[in-house]
Amino acid sequence: MRFSMLSSPWIPFLLLFFSSSVTSFQYRIPRLSPMGEKFLHHSEALELPPSNDFKTFYYKQTLDHFSYRPESYGTFPQRYIINFKYWGGANSSAPILAYLGAEAPIDSAMNSIGFMTDNAIKFNALLVYIEHRYYGKSIPFGSRKEALRNASTLGYFNSAQAIADYAAVLIHVKKEFNANYSPVIVIGGSYGGMLATWFRLKYPHVALGALASSAPILYFDDITPRNGYYAVVTKDFREVSQACYQTIRESWSEIETVASQPNGLSILDKEFKTCSPLRSSTELENYLWSVYASAAQYNHPAKYPVNRICGAIDGTYSGNGILSKIAAGVFAYRGKLSCYINEPRNATETDVGWRWQRCSEMVMPISTDNDTMFPPYTFDLESFTIHCNRSYGVPPRPHWVTTYYGGHDLHLILQRFGSNIIFSNGLKDPYSIGGVLHNISDTLPAVYTTHGSHCLDILSANKMDPEWLVKQRKTEVGIIKEWFNRYYADLVNYNK
Amino acid sequence: MRFSMLSSPWIPFLLLFFSSSVTSFQYRIPRLSPMGEKFLHHSEALELPPSNDFKTFYYKQTLDHFSYRPESYGTFPQRYIINFKYWGGANSSAPILAYLGAEAPIDSAMNSIGFMTDNAIKFNALLVYIEHRYYGKSIPFGSRKEALRNASTLGYFNSAQAIADYAAVLIHVKKEFNANYSPVIVIGGSYGGMLATWFRLKYPHVALGALASSAPILYFDDITPRNGYYAVVTKDFREVSQACYQTIRESWSEIETVASQPNGLSILDKEFKTCSPLRSSTELENYLWSVYASAAQYNHPAKYPVNRICGAIDGTYSGNGILSKIAAGVFAYRGKLSCYINEPRNATETDVGWRWQRCSEMVMPISTDNDTMFPPYTFDLESFTIHCNRSYGVPPRPHWVTTYYGGHDLHLILQRFGSNIIFSNGLKDPYSIGGVLHNISDTLPAVYTTHGSHCLDILSANKMDPEWLVKQRKTEVGIIKEWFNRYYADLVNYNK
Repeated sequence: MRFSMLSSPWIPFLLLFFSSSVTSFQYRIPRLSPMGEKFLHHSEALELPPSNDFKTFYYKQTLDHFSYRPESYGTFPQRYIINFKYWGGANSSAPILAYLGAEAPIDSAMNSIGFMTDNAIKFNALLVYIEHRYYGKSIPFGSRKEALRNASTLGYFNSAQAIADYAAVLIHVKKEFNANYSPVIVIGGSYGGMLATWFRLKYPHVALGALASSAPILYFDDITPRNGYYAVVTKDFREVSQACYQTIRESWSEIETVASQPNGLSILDKEFKTCSPLRSSTELENYLWSVYASAAQYNHPAKYPVNRICGAIDGTYSGNGILSKIAAGVFAYRGKLSCYINEPRNATETDVGWRWQRCSEMVMPISTDNDTMFPPYTFDLESFTIHCNRSYGVPPRPHWVTTYYGGHDLHLILQRFGSNIIFSNGLKDPYSIGGVLHNISDTLPAVYTTHGSHCLDILSANKMDPEWLVKQRKTEVGIIKEWFNRYYADLVNYNK
Repeated sequence: MRFSMLSSPWIPFLLLFFSSSVTSFQYRIPRLSPMGEKFLHHSEALELPPSNDFKTFYYKQTLDHFSYRPESYGTFPQRYIINFKYWGGANSSAPILAYLGAEAPIDSAMNSIGFMTDNAIKFNALLVYIEHRYYGKSIPFGSRKEALRNASTLGYFNSAQAIADYAAVLIHVKKEFNANYSPVIVIGGSYGGMLATWFRLKYPHVALGALASSAPILYFDDITPRNGYYAVVTKDFREVSQACYQTIRESWSEIETVASQPNGLSILDKEFKTCSPLRSSTELENYLWSVYASAAQYNHPAKYPVNRICGAIDGTYSGNGILSKIAAGVFAYRGKLSCYINEPRNATETDVGWRWQRCSEMVMPISTDNDTMFPPYTFDLESFTIHCNRSYGVPPRPHWVTTYYGGHDLHLILQRFGSNIIFSNGLKDPYSIGGVLHNISDTLPAVYTTHGSHCLDILSANKMDPEWLVKQRKTEVGIIKEWFNRYYADLVNYNK
């Protein structure tokens, strides 16, 4: 099987594929967000308008914090949303919980990031949700079209600028509401969890602590083994069913065999009920690849998509061929649809924005090897660089994240520096392999669950939640309470 | 007395004044550097060429670390200089002492920053001296002329970019010499001391610790009272001689009285032996102002310029008028010259560079009041902004330093965050009032001397050094040794 997606003829295909697959799967780097798209498809809750408790504000944000060229002084309206309902007020220096927006518009966060609303009353907290620059309504250069035009306008779209934005907004909010001594806890998941970690490290004078959920801050350079992500996906499937794992493992060559027959692609179209004819076997393979990755990453209770897929694969009458088993897995995962694969879908803001972010600084080298159930695939920085350069006219800076934020020998470095970051993970989440899974120090704890998946802890609590998830959240709340207690004690001494 | 320097007709004068005074004294913000210019005038040692132990390198540095515009990828050669002579080598993870260049070419640092060479053998340390961007030979855009052309090219000339440069260079050096686990201590004085502080806070994964000498990191926003600087200058003079203080205090109105007479300025020219005729009394006043400030700031043993000035002022036959006493003070301070004031002098790189830095991010609001021996002067941000805007086409960002680096409630914030920064000061140094003078935590100590002045501790040790200075340096070396011991112990555990 050839995985030559990176050679030049494939580039247009990649772009097309990009906007028509279940997940954006270019370079086999799964998306990084608290919720899978499946979740988005199925949860009406997310489409509810925010309640009246949420007030929208705009901050006049600086385009470029790190330069003093005339252009740097450009500004754009940055959206942030506040819920005052539970706040104990400035007089008691009641806390602020700040959700740091990630690679999506902020709109859905008020409903989906349950950790904020679920705990607001416990902490008497002001809730602040800040939108990430270049997403939603926080767009520089007057319009999305202008902002995304080329590298000259996209250039300011990066994490260092984003967390400087958050610092400016939070300083502004504290000033605006006289909340000078209100401790701020920043909360984020996935890429947003990285931002929360980095924010506490770079702006300890703005945030007292951070809850960084499922933040693979070690998936840069080669700190984490490249095959880590898909090794966990494989493990997730294998633990559910050895037979299922075996079927998937064997399916790739079967697809190739069928595809190479005369009319092979039509046979695959029929088997998988494609929405439009496959143009190559790679198209199908990419789709399957993303289904397994996303099922593992978002293997949330009570539905547990990995179990669901394997249930279908294993449950299909064993006389059936491998491909009909695989197809049954897909149908089970996606639910009843009129057709599958190449489903018509518009590129989301996340698709478009994350593509740039990945091609500039968020270079996470992810490969597979023979220990996984996937075909071998090697991330090739050189061709990735060529691709990014072709797409945007500028190459990625693959070492910038570790230069600016660190990562190498993190435990050695941070055991005597920094404090108050919770690194939370669920070990079923393939990205957890790039997360912090051991306590770095008393004040830099790792809180993980064996059965958890991506960002589960910061999503809304619900009566069906398993015990281990309830416990994880309780642990996190307890740690944050301790931070507050210590801070308020310090504050009393400080003001003496 | 009018201090209307900021109104528009004075701007050209300011520029002229700027390049012809003893110290760059625009806006009465004294210069920030380890050595006063007086020191530079008098110490031939500084002009010695570096010995053969020093090797010069150039790193291909990124123009803009924080943006991905095509222009950001520009590079410039950044100079750094290494002394290998004392290094214990990579195999033993022997330490690296890195001097972070400040607002001057790096050339003189090898001779003047004695803390490096004096302690290299004790620590078996590699010595690295890194030049600050836009100074010396580390010039973007191909030439100094291009680099300083306007805000579009000057825009990248700021502290955040500079410390990112240092991170890139140090990561490169460690890689180049396989010194992955060699602990790095960054050392800087004055503005460079701020950079050292900020570097440890922002790049703990690159530097294990920082020695920040005379770094007024709290002289931003209004963390430190505005009159602090000149209150210390006044105290320094008053402690030496109440009579001297009184004479200076009375001299300002005397100057105005004489200047307002017919031919008044010529009388002053004669009295002060000016090199070219005074154009206004303000010209003389600025000069005196800067003499007193610089004498206090660089009140180094064994010469103690404040004592020298007051000795001359007080020693002059008391029948003489106030002005001849003041002139005697100036002559004593400057030494025997053919003329004084308006001495022909070319603007140095520091004059030109620091002027930009002050007009962009290093906005230190310094005023005087009636408690000082100076005429009242109020720093006016609004007119300062107008002036900077006129000079460069962009306004300063007066709150950026505290947004990015913090400063407000520093003790509260850092008592449970960060480690391994020595804040060293001498209390005679007027800038010490904006420094950290109390221990923040066990690992963030303040080491000060009552009699010390600006950056004394990091200058070369010498047999004449007073006991308190010897002791200060010994304390600092002891603390750094402890950092190393703890680090090497951690490293053994880490590698187990």
